Amino acid sequence: METVDNRPDRPQEECGVFGIYAHSKSSALTYYGLVALQHRGQEAAGIASTDGNRMYSHKGLGLLADVFKQGELENLNGHAAIGHVRYSTAGANTIQNAQPITLSTHTRNFAIAHNGNLVNAKWLRIRLEQEGSLFQTTTDTEVIAHLIAKANADSLADAVEAAAKQITGGFAVVILGNDELIAVRDPLGLRPMVLGQLGDAYVVASESCALETIGATLVRDVEPGELIHIGPDGMSSRRFAVRRQRRMCTFEHVYFARPDSDVDGWNVHTVRKRLGRILAKLHPADGDIVIGVPDSSISAAAGYAEESRIPYEMGLIKNKYIARTFIQPSQELRDTGVRLKLNAVRSIVEGKRVVLIDDSIVRGTTSRRIVQLLRSAGASEVHVRISSPPYVSPCHYGIDTATADQLIASTHDVGEICGMIEADSLAFLTVDELMEGFGFSGTTNVPFCNACFTRNYPTELVDSGLKEAHHELVHVGG
Amino acid sequence: METVDNRPDRPQEECGVFGIYAHSKSSALTYYGLVALQHRGQEAAGIASTDGNRMYSHKGLGLLADVFKQGELENLNGHAAIGHVRYSTAGANTIQNAQPITLSTHTRNFAIAHNGNLVNAKWLRIRLEQEGSLFQTTTDTEVIAHLIAKANADSLADAVEAAAKQITGGFAVVILGNDELIAVRDPLGLRPMVLGQLGDAYVVASESCALETIGATLVRDVEPGELIHIGPDGMSSRRFAVRRQRRMCTFEHVYFARPDSDVDGWNVHTVRKRLGRILAKLHPADGDIVIGVPDSSISAAAGYAEESRIPYEMGLIKNKYIARTFIQPSQELRDTGVRLKLNAVRSIVEGKRVVLIDDSIVRGTTSRRIVQLLRSAGASEVHVRISSPPYVSPCHYGIDTATADQLIASTHDVGEICGMIEADSLAFLTVDELMEGFGFSGTTNVPFCNACFTRNYPTELVDSGLKEAHHELVHVGG
Amino acid sequence: METVDNRPDRPQEECGVFGIYAHSKSSALTYYGLVALQHRGQEAAGIASTDGNRMYSHKGLGLLADVFKQGELENLNGHAAIGHVRYSTAGANTIQNAQPITLSTHTRNFAIAHNGNLVNAKWLRIRLEQEGSLFQTTTDTEVIAHLIAKANADSLADAVEAAAKQITGGFAVVILGNDELIAVRDPLGLRPMVLGQLGDAYVVASESCALETIGATLVRDVEPGELIHIGPDGMSSRRFAVRRQRRMCTFEHVYFARPDSDVDGWNVHTVRKRLGRILAKLHPADGDIVIGVPDSSISAAAGYAEESRIPYEMGLIKNKYIARTFIQPSQELRDTGVRLKLNAVRSIVEGKRVVLIDDSIVRGTTSRRIVQLLRSAGASEVHVRISSPPYVSPCHYGIDTATADQLIASTHDVGEICGMIEADSLAFLTVDELMEGFGFSGTTNVPFCNACFTRNYPTELVDSGLKEAHHELVHVGG
Amino acid sequence: METVDNRPDRPQEECGVFGIYAHSKSSALTYYGLVALQHRGQEAAGIASTDGNRMYSHKGLGLLADVFKQGELENLNGHAAIGHVRYSTAGANTIQNAQPITLSTHTRNFAIAHNGNLVNAKWLRIRLEQEGSLFQTTTDTEVIAHLIAKANADSLADAVEAAAKQITGGFAVVILGNDELIAVRDPLGLRPMVLGQLGDAYVVASESCALETIGATLVRDVEPGELIHIGPDGMSSRRFAVRRQRRMCTFEHVYFARPDSDVDGWNVHTVRKRLGRILAKLHPADGDIVIGVPDSSISAAAGYAEESRIPYEMGLIKNKYIARTFIQPSQELRDTGVRLKLNAVRSIVEGKRVVLIDDSIVRGTTSRRIVQLLRSAGASEVHVRISSPPYVSPCHYGIDTATADQLIASTHDVGEICGMIEADSLAFLTVDELMEGFGFSGTTNVPFCNACFTRNYPTELVDSGLKEAHHELVHVGG
Repeated sequence: METVDNRPDRPQEECGVFGIYAHSKSSALTYYGLVALQHRGQEAAGIASTDGNRMYSHKGLGLLADVFKQGELENLNGHAAIGHVRYSTAGANTIQNAQPITLSTHTRNFAIAHNGNLVNAKWLRIRLEQEGSLFQTTTDTEVIAHLIAKANADSLADAVEAAAKQITGGFAVVILGNDELIAVRDPLGLRPMVLGQLGDAYVVASESCALETIGATLVRDVEPGELIHIGPDGMSSRRFAVRRQRRMCTFEHVYFARPDSDVDGWNVHTVRKRLGRILAKLHPADGDIVIGVPDSSISAAAGYAEESRIPYEMGLIKNKYIARTFIQPSQELRDTGVRLKLNAVRSIVEGKRVVLIDDSIVRGTTSRRIVQLLRSAGASEVHVRISSPPYVSPCHYGIDTATADQLIASTHDVGEICGMIEADSLAFLTVDELMEGFGFSGTTNVPFCNACFTRNYPTELVDSGLKEAHHELVHVGG
Repeated sequence: METVDNRPDRPQEECGVFGIYAHSKSSALTYYGLVALQHRGQEAAGIASTDGNRMYSHKGLGLLADVFKQGELENLNGHAAIGHVRYSTAGANTIQNAQPITLSTHTRNFAIAHNGNLVNAKWLRIRLEQEGSLFQTTTDTEVIAHLIAKANADSLADAVEAAAKQITGGFAVVILGNDELIAVRDPLGLRPMVLGQLGDAYVVASESCALETIGATLVRDVEPGELIHIGPDGMSSRRFAVRRQRRMCTFEHVYFARPDSDVDGWNVHTVRKRLGRILAKLHPADGDIVIGVPDSSISAAAGYAEESRIPYEMGLIKNKYIARTFIQPSQELRDTGVRLKLNAVRSIVEGKRVVLIDDSIVRGTTSRRIVQLLRSAGASEVHVRISSPPYVSPCHYGIDTATADQLIASTHDVGEICGMIEADSLAFLTVDELMEGFGFSGTTNVPFCNACFTRNYPTELVDSGLKEAHHELVHVGG
Repeated sequence: METVDNRPDRPQEECGVFGIYAHSKSSALTYYGLVALQHRGQEAAGIASTDGNRMYSHKGLGLLADVFKQGELENLNGHAAIGHVRYSTAGANTIQNAQPITLSTHTRNFAIAHNGNLVNAKWLRIRLEQEGSLFQTTTDTEVIAHLIAKANADSLADAVEAAAKQITGGFAVVILGNDELIAVRDPLGLRPMVLGQLGDAYVVASESCALETIGATLVRDVEPGELIHIGPDGMSSRRFAVRRQRRMCTFEHVYFARPDSDVDGWNVHTVRKRLGRILAKLHPADGDIVIGVPDSSISAAAGYAEESRIPYEMGLIKNKYIARTFIQPSQELRDTGVRLKLNAVRSIVEGKRVVLIDDSIVRGTTSRRIVQLLRSAGASEVHVRISSPPYVSPCHYGIDTATADQLIASTHDVGEICGMIEADSLAFLTVDELMEGFGFSGTTNVPFCNACFTRNYPTELVDSGLKEAHHELVHVGG
Repeated sequence: METVDNRPDRPQEECGVFGIYAHSKSSALTYYGLVALQHRGQEAAGIASTDGNRMYSHKGLGLLADVFKQGELENLNGHAAIGHVRYSTAGANTIQNAQPITLSTHTRNFAIAHNGNLVNAKWLRIRLEQEGSLFQTTTDTEVIAHLIAKANADSLADAVEAAAKQITGGFAVVILGNDELIAVRDPLGLRPMVLGQLGDAYVVASESCALETIGATLVRDVEPGELIHIGPDGMSSRRFAVRRQRRMCTFEHVYFARPDSDVDGWNVHTVRKRLGRILAKLHPADGDIVIGVPDSSISAAAGYAEESRIPYEMGLIKNKYIARTFIQPSQELRDTGVRLKLNAVRSIVEGKRVVLIDDSIVRGTTSRRIVQLLRSAGASEVHVRISSPPYVSPCHYGIDTATADQLIASTHDVGEICGMIEADSLAFLTVDELMEGFGFSGTTNVPFCNACFTRNYPTELVDSGLKEAHHELVHVGG
């Protein structure tokens, strides 16, 4: 048996965050909010809470259901809490890197949790270490924490502001003080964050689906460059960065976010469906049925089907229990045809010309496998249509993909990729067409980051070329 | 915190079975086959294997991923194996009732696993106990095992045949001998079972999706009343009951089976979609969007949308991680609006007249909650359309629903139910219309069991009125 | 790393049993009683209880502390309970073989737990299987259960009596009915069992230390051949076998029982100390210090020291945490001198002539290792004195030792063994001297079974030569 | 059920440390060394190793057997390792406080583990936090780590030396660099540490029993105020503090250390036995039997018995499995006499005048319970003799006892204590008599810390009166 591959052929979101202030069940609501955000990270989870006198925390490896059992939530007392779900790469998936991190400084205790990636974390860490800071994890979050601790500031909010001014990249951070909750979002709005209300309580979360889940109302998105402070005197807001054109991550819409979330004003499902329609209009295919790769491409496929009038069919079925199966077939068994994740439905596919809708092609290996799956179930033709442009360059703002040389589109044109994935035809959206899905014509000055499609990064990549200072710390297991 | 309700407002399938003979990786393939059948039972799982000399077994409570860790599969040696996933009611979900059961008799060892429910199990058990049989579980499976053991037969196949002749009800049973695999399906074909091939190996399974998953080819359905024997001399077949009109369970198609399975020749997704089309044609609704209750009603909703030309939208999102969350919101939190399982998407639903497609209404509580969910997300109207007839009578053949008095349709007419679930309109398919989905006109002599819709049971209900002989055995936890 | 050897060079006790009737905390007291009996079996544990209407049970693999967590005891309701701790050989240590077994028959439910070994279990099982009985475990206990179930008897007590008359060997069995507790002890008293009282409640247990632990008073030993019935009408007693000379197992005194237990009237520590004194008197050694092998030989060593006036020193220290350590040193590490279980204390041993007291030599490998340990810590001489006779023949009544050919004393004389264990001198007690420790002169007609020392078994060995009827059932893990 | 009391009426050792350099099996040997030190802490354990390029670590809550399973040790690569077992108070027993801590600084990575307690940790932490240091745990160890990180030093050894010069108290610290192992012991030698060799490898450990266990030879004690550096060039030593009279903790000898350890030249068992002899000579009692409270008072009781010629008997038996039992009897059950930890043996004790030897009386509650236990088992008189002086003042150097007002001897004289524990007579050793056990006459200038008996602390208590700066951080569970 092999163990499961932790670096699948899909972009990986780094994390989801949640915070709530002024609710008697703050840690339970944080738990439920995180359940709604579980798709953003399944490898570690944690919650910190405060009752104004003490700060409580619990975190662990695995799904929320693994980390929190009866009883642990009940010990997370207090009227305010923050929480975190984490995706992480194989080597670093250790309890040490789980969040929130709780810390004590000269003047105060606080807890911090973070979604995103800093492009100057390495640079900042070197500077901090040179000044005597001591690091116990390999996370960006600890860098932000040190900056907060080092800020010569009267209030926690001032300290967070000072820290936020020094960091560059994509970030959505929640900080819990003894009796206050602070949230900051990066100046470009690369990573999403929303603000909601539940009775008298304020809530912040990575996606609006977390608000819906706990019965809270969406107030608005947290603004890029905004610092929100919630405390006994209510909610207040300040800016830590000048207002600039926002650059929200299109890939949240294309792939990551839950279809029921509204991100920066756009409903995710609706955008995806529109992209499917555009794809159908501009990249038609002669097919008998439309099939979407579950789950993320279902919306786009529905749009494609509606527009093209080709019937939509469930020709691929995803096993919903597979996420939890750690026993993977060996190569020997895989060669016999064992496929746990996806099944092609012969009685639907057989003899049909299939239009296969997927949201993206990263390394190409999954696409080839799905095409083969459909053919071996009897599809006569497979026309692949992708509801985003070719993915040519790695993200530096919180999405973990393969390195540039592993991205099939960074070194091959569409014709070559079509051959490599063994499709009968292949088409992508262009970046212009992608923007059209959001109602923009052209890419000039759009409020989006399309760097993974254009190589045009909206920030300097400070750490590029910086080496690790030392030998590596490896935490083994729990 | 409350613990999760183990008796939700949904019919519950009893089990899934799998068997394979003549493959060097028999237990691994059984594991993957069961992963594909996991939707049929999530509360216990087990595998027994044989190398011709020894019989090996392992079982436990929970999902396959919980029961089988690295290493345990490797100890299940041999070239033949059977496996089981189990749904069970709360009280009886103990390791004692997990399957396969392994037994030793005068003449042989065998292992047995079963999907279905006998209508004369209680009666048989009383008779067996009177003759001195000793029962260690509360399962029908142990009754069948005793009948096999008591059969005065030369071969295991003869003994199984003798047992099969005595039992009445719905059953799909796999039996593993020292060097043979036997499968039997009830004479009416109430429970599904298919036969497949993988190279030289033979495979039997509750649904064809398990064959697809391991790369095996579907040969045919196991015939009602058929006993299949697979051993060193290959596969042979005999009948243990005279051929009668088959009575396959329509509810497998309506709700249980995986959409990619072919059951008795019909692809499940295709049938569901057709039922949706019929529903649209015969029970139209003035709506702006069609929404299906995920996951089981998606196919029917797609059919309804196609036929009605009303666009299909993902207005309800199911949290895929919720299955594993044992910490449920307390009533207090539920009152604040916490909803873990389903979210209604405001930006899709708001201001819309929704046509809500569901596969069935059992107790009605879930339907009411979903209607409320849609309204609170802004739906202006909610028209409920059900892709099956009113569910009026409990199943006795392996599906665990509420008792008759809990079934809303057994005591209320459609108008009353419409009010109770707070819908603007409500319509069901009739039984005739349901049959139309399979290509039959009228219900006379159709090869289906519709007893849950018609109260017309295809067998005598032998145990009705029989009391439990003794006090109850309660196994606590694992 | 190797896994721990499950067949160490020590005799292994099969089990401990406990039962209580008429106490509102019956399952909690059973738990504490079993904790006191944990030395009799560490590989599985279980409790069954009854409230007169329902029977509850929970069992699992491992120590009591592993099997019972907060909450499970609380679900074991009722005023009566039985419990079991189990030692088992590697292959059969599965949940299936854990006890108590709960069963339902024609007329009643009951639970049963057993310490001991039957010499006609195989024979009985063949007969029962021929009559149609179905076996799900490989335990003697299930054989007894079938005999009880098959008895044509009005009361559970009559059925148990009928069963007890058919079984031969060493056994101490507790049976729990719906509102009654029954205990039987084999006619020769090979296995121990005591009766106690705690207020109005009656208690039975394998050893008196379990009574002490729960605050109960020792009333008397259960008589060999006695059946004790405890129910709503109080305690009653009957005999199921004619009174014969009792044959209690001397090895319980020499090695197994806890030193604070009184077994058949003798305090275990006191007997061991007396054996040490006799050993000193009759098998003196020129030594500077006396060292006992912890823990079982400490009493004998103290007696030896007192009698010989040679000071007793703690020259060997046992690591009390090692029992729970499953990671054992590989041979490579063992060769470097890694020794987890015992340490020799250099500053005590160095330059000393050591008299090493041990309770028995089974295969001899442990003895050689201890002698080497002492020498490498600087002992100038090591004189080994054994507080029992040479162990020459396997037990058939519930103690699991090596097979005859693995018993060093069955094939070698004392001089040879002395050489093999590399001691400077070696002496055993004779059987006469062992009997002297209990106050008997000579071995004629003593109330003890010394078969392991004399090959003189007090019962026929019915199963000898009987073969297993079938292939083997192997349960893998939990 | 109550959960176990985590603050029992016994002093609690803080920790044990271990380190090894230049062995291909360094982490496995560290594991076995820690098994031998498990008595010094059972609540958390961890190991860090290095292969010169990467540093690996694993830690967790519970016994070593709970924290390390098959596989985890194998991932701890490299030729050098350090390890830690931890005792901690209830609230702080969290994964965050487990050790070794691994850190990265400006110039290097290192791992650190610590046994002891600093008397200026709070003061140092305030200073460090004021300078911007950020703390993630509540351990002294993290204070030492920050001092190391802040040291402006070329080598790790220089940095450790700089840190060691700033800390006051009792400490035995091991630090692992990328290719070096450093050990420091406090200038007074309050906490023990030994140096050993195993072939070419060097080993350091809290007690010599850890050396014995892995087959290493004891070279010498690490000197008070010594820093030992072990690296590719072998072992070197330097002093970080001027040589002063050493002040080794007598309580290590009286209670904590394993009897087979040699601490600063004295074998623990031998010292204890000598204390028992002195106790017998100077504080005789008219008794029939001598009983020691297991396990720590067995040596002293043996000495008392030998000197007094009163026979030593095992009148109290400790349940060796109780350590792992988390289900404790409720008060209700305790009142019925349930006693899990100790049993008094009626047949030994009944009618006897008992001389009960214990090593210390802390709060007095345990002593009273044992006296009652003996009386209820029939002892006619109970004369308590304590092999140490009255414990009047809390330790500040790494032993966790009750606060001063909970120490029975700090507020009551011997006569009063005798009444409170319900003994017939009571005597303690004086401090002079205690010193006699080590061969010293008088207490002037002895190389021991007797502060718990004399209130005469060998260091300033810097932190006394310092308050916590902030609110408290509480980590919940794992």
